[in-house]
Amino acid sequence: MSPEEFRRVGKQVVDWIADYRAGIESFPVRSQVGPGEVRDALPAHPPERGEDFDQVLRDLDEILLPGVTHWQHPGFFAYFPANSSGPSILGDLLSSGLGVQGMVWATSPACTELETVVVDWLAELLGLPAHFRTDAAGGGVIQDSASSAVLVACLAALQRTGEDVARRGITRRHALYVSAHTHSSLERAARLAGIGADNVRVVDTDPETLGMDPRHLDELIAADVEAGAVPTMVCATIGTTSTTAIDPVREIGEVCRRRGVWLHVDAAYAGVAAVCPELRWINDGVAEFADSYCTNPHKWLLTNFDCSALWLADRAPMIEALSILPEYLRNEASESGEVIDYRDWQVPLGRRFRSLKLWSVLRWYGAEGLRAHIRDTVALAQEFAGWVRGDPDFELLEPHPFALVCFRPRYPDLPVDEANERTHRVMNALNDSGDLYLTHTKIGGRTLLRLAIGSPATERRHVQDAWERIRRAT
Amino acid sequence: MSPEEFRRVGKQVVDWIADYRAGIESFPVRSQVGPGEVRDALPAHPPERGEDFDQVLRDLDEILLPGVTHWQHPGFFAYFPANSSGPSILGDLLSSGLGVQGMVWATSPACTELETVVVDWLAELLGLPAHFRTDAAGGGVIQDSASSAVLVACLAALQRTGEDVARRGITRRHALYVSAHTHSSLERAARLAGIGADNVRVVDTDPETLGMDPRHLDELIAADVEAGAVPTMVCATIGTTSTTAIDPVREIGEVCRRRGVWLHVDAAYAGVAAVCPELRWINDGVAEFADSYCTNPHKWLLTNFDCSALWLADRAPMIEALSILPEYLRNEASESGEVIDYRDWQVPLGRRFRSLKLWSVLRWYGAEGLRAHIRDTVALAQEFAGWVRGDPDFELLEPHPFALVCFRPRYPDLPVDEANERTHRVMNALNDSGDLYLTHTKIGGRTLLRLAIGSPATERRHVQDAWERIRRAT
Repeated sequence: MSPEEFRRVGKQVVDWIADYRAGIESFPVRSQVGPGEVRDALPAHPPERGEDFDQVLRDLDEILLPGVTHWQHPGFFAYFPANSSGPSILGDLLSSGLGVQGMVWATSPACTELETVVVDWLAELLGLPAHFRTDAAGGGVIQDSASSAVLVACLAALQRTGEDVARRGITRRHALYVSAHTHSSLERAARLAGIGADNVRVVDTDPETLGMDPRHLDELIAADVEAGAVPTMVCATIGTTSTTAIDPVREIGEVCRRRGVWLHVDAAYAGVAAVCPELRWINDGVAEFADSYCTNPHKWLLTNFDCSALWLADRAPMIEALSILPEYLRNEASESGEVIDYRDWQVPLGRRFRSLKLWSVLRWYGAEGLRAHIRDTVALAQEFAGWVRGDPDFELLEPHPFALVCFRPRYPDLPVDEANERTHRVMNALNDSGDLYLTHTKIGGRTLLRLAIGSPATERRHVQDAWERIRRAT
Repeated sequence: MSPEEFRRVGKQVVDWIADYRAGIESFPVRSQVGPGEVRDALPAHPPERGEDFDQVLRDLDEILLPGVTHWQHPGFFAYFPANSSGPSILGDLLSSGLGVQGMVWATSPACTELETVVVDWLAELLGLPAHFRTDAAGGGVIQDSASSAVLVACLAALQRTGEDVARRGITRRHALYVSAHTHSSLERAARLAGIGADNVRVVDTDPETLGMDPRHLDELIAADVEAGAVPTMVCATIGTTSTTAIDPVREIGEVCRRRGVWLHVDAAYAGVAAVCPELRWINDGVAEFADSYCTNPHKWLLTNFDCSALWLADRAPMIEALSILPEYLRNEASESGEVIDYRDWQVPLGRRFRSLKLWSVLRWYGAEGLRAHIRDTVALAQEFAGWVRGDPDFELLEPHPFALVCFRPRYPDLPVDEANERTHRVMNALNDSGDLYLTHTKIGGRTLLRLAIGSPATERRHVQDAWERIRRAT
């Protein structure tokens, strides 16, 4: 495809996206297809001859779109949002257009240096501590996801235990500490890093706040030490996936400090809320105690997936765990020690110019625009929570400081199991309608509906409509 | 940014990319900036107020471009190519525009099903065995990179040893087998998976072919078994990074079969060459013996980074190693067993709609166009190799079946170290010129220059110019 063909077809694709975004409400938010429908509609064999891009766009409309769940639909309240915005899409487009690979500084200095600048900017916007900056001992990096970020943190933590796991492998029992509400990526990291799911300890939580109990954490660590295991990493969560509960980072951090255990803070969803000074309280204890901290601009900060920011208080154990220098990657700049080679900060070797999208977002919206996005969506969620609280047919889970509201219809005459089943039925009926999309969680044996606001397309009227439909469905 | 603003600015960005591609030869291929130059030219703090996209594009031109090494420049002969093409860029743009997250089938069925279709198409195009298809016991998946792919393969291999590593962690010594020419991602996988770099055995290679010696492999495995270690995975490479050497997959596979060891085949660069029937010999033994196989369309098959295809002969141990099902991801489709949830096939949980770019490439070029791209670049490399072979001042490394040529200037009167240093100086001078970009490797103590052809922008005249410059520089 020549540059001139690209110019022509590229504008067609831009029009396609603009039209898609403008008309997104005409689609059912959750795809209505059954397993295999999309696959069966596609040819079984690849084309022998090249085709026009028109044909790609036609099949996109006719075959793929019915199979798409529209994450950018204003009625998408499922999971957490996966924010997308114009400047982010265009930042990613520039990255694809440049087609550079930034595995080491030398392979495209701007790819590395812009990343350092934007993660430093983001740390400043979130009020994160100065020692997370790359010009101190720490530093930030963009990962594809919080799962990969926590794996990197875990490998650094393993290395810091002094067992030289990178070289010798796992030779003792290492333990990780989570709560029942910690994201599954922690168990995943334990499986991946050779620690094993059986060595993930589940710390009790406070039945009210759902936050991790620091005293029980301390007991579990003591028991592991007693048993000869190596307490390696604790994960505290700011904004759990289930309900956006917040672990007491400061108290957990004090335990970690006393016990010499790495503290990872998973603020994947909620961390970006700290662009608003009135929400910075969520990070209490992070500056003093966090060895690593992760938040995802791709969830709630207007930046397309994938863009997860990871900061470390000290980058040395991570680099020790991950750095290998084969001959074909040797270069003067790396050997000078004056540059960052982000290949040593992540699982894969290669890397896209991902900072371009975050840079585009930070510049287009400015700090002011980002704060407005967080505040607007929090306000909508609080208004929704107020409606739920005011309705005797519903029960609201408190607190809900962000833009996720968990609630359930009350079925006072039904046993829990039947009430849960009815709640599921309500959710499925709503999701089948195509007008909105909710997911669920389970707390204390009870099924709760989760309504997560956060798409830039969601306005007050969409939340009102959702509430009307939920009420009618129950 | 409203859809209408996106339409306007998006077209500006498309024009920017078209102009960049059309004028790419006006840039020095390798960036000429020093450490910190780009960073120092960017503001130390993020903007408080939003800015126009024009300002982003202005800073891209003025501040970032001088720091970009132009991987799509026709004079880029370094590393391996990172192919990019119009349809691929636009496929990626559609993925960003849709902004869906395909972690499980239910979160966007089309995202999963198109991926299954295109990896099956690609397997067919490459003549890979039918049991690599998802409708058999195996299946293919798109990873970000061959590094992540080999980590996934390694986790599956660990699980298949019967030690239940996912649950219990690493409790015995596990060993991986590579050669000195295997990619560093294997040692990285050993570090990440808790096996440890010390448990990566380096099998001897044939001094002529640089291929792994199956007899020595067998001896090393026997020694490990004797010592109580668990031989876990062998990596055979088709097209090493240094020189595109090919390990004898069939003989290695026979050893693996007899010893019950997982065979991963890393064909990251060269595997895509099998779109041409006359190059399918490279995969001899894969159908019979490979447990996993990886090749990167993002290197040499016109698809933007990141797009690495991994196939497995049996997906069960991988899913056993990686699958966890928290409540908030439970859904009817997953529980029906009728769908694929690709989150169990990779390190991160979330995933982009990456198949759109590979689909766009396969449709725009067709099998015919892909074969032409491989044949044209191989032909250019063979012509270049002929010029080197015919020049008494140079020594050529044979064989060079793909589009990488390794060679060195002859300095008959100099000791090896000095000759190596002179070769490095020649390379640095060429790279400093901005007209071309080469990298190096070291074989048997001797530094060789690597000239990798593969960018769609590279024409015969660029290769001729490169040769002229190399001759003049030595």
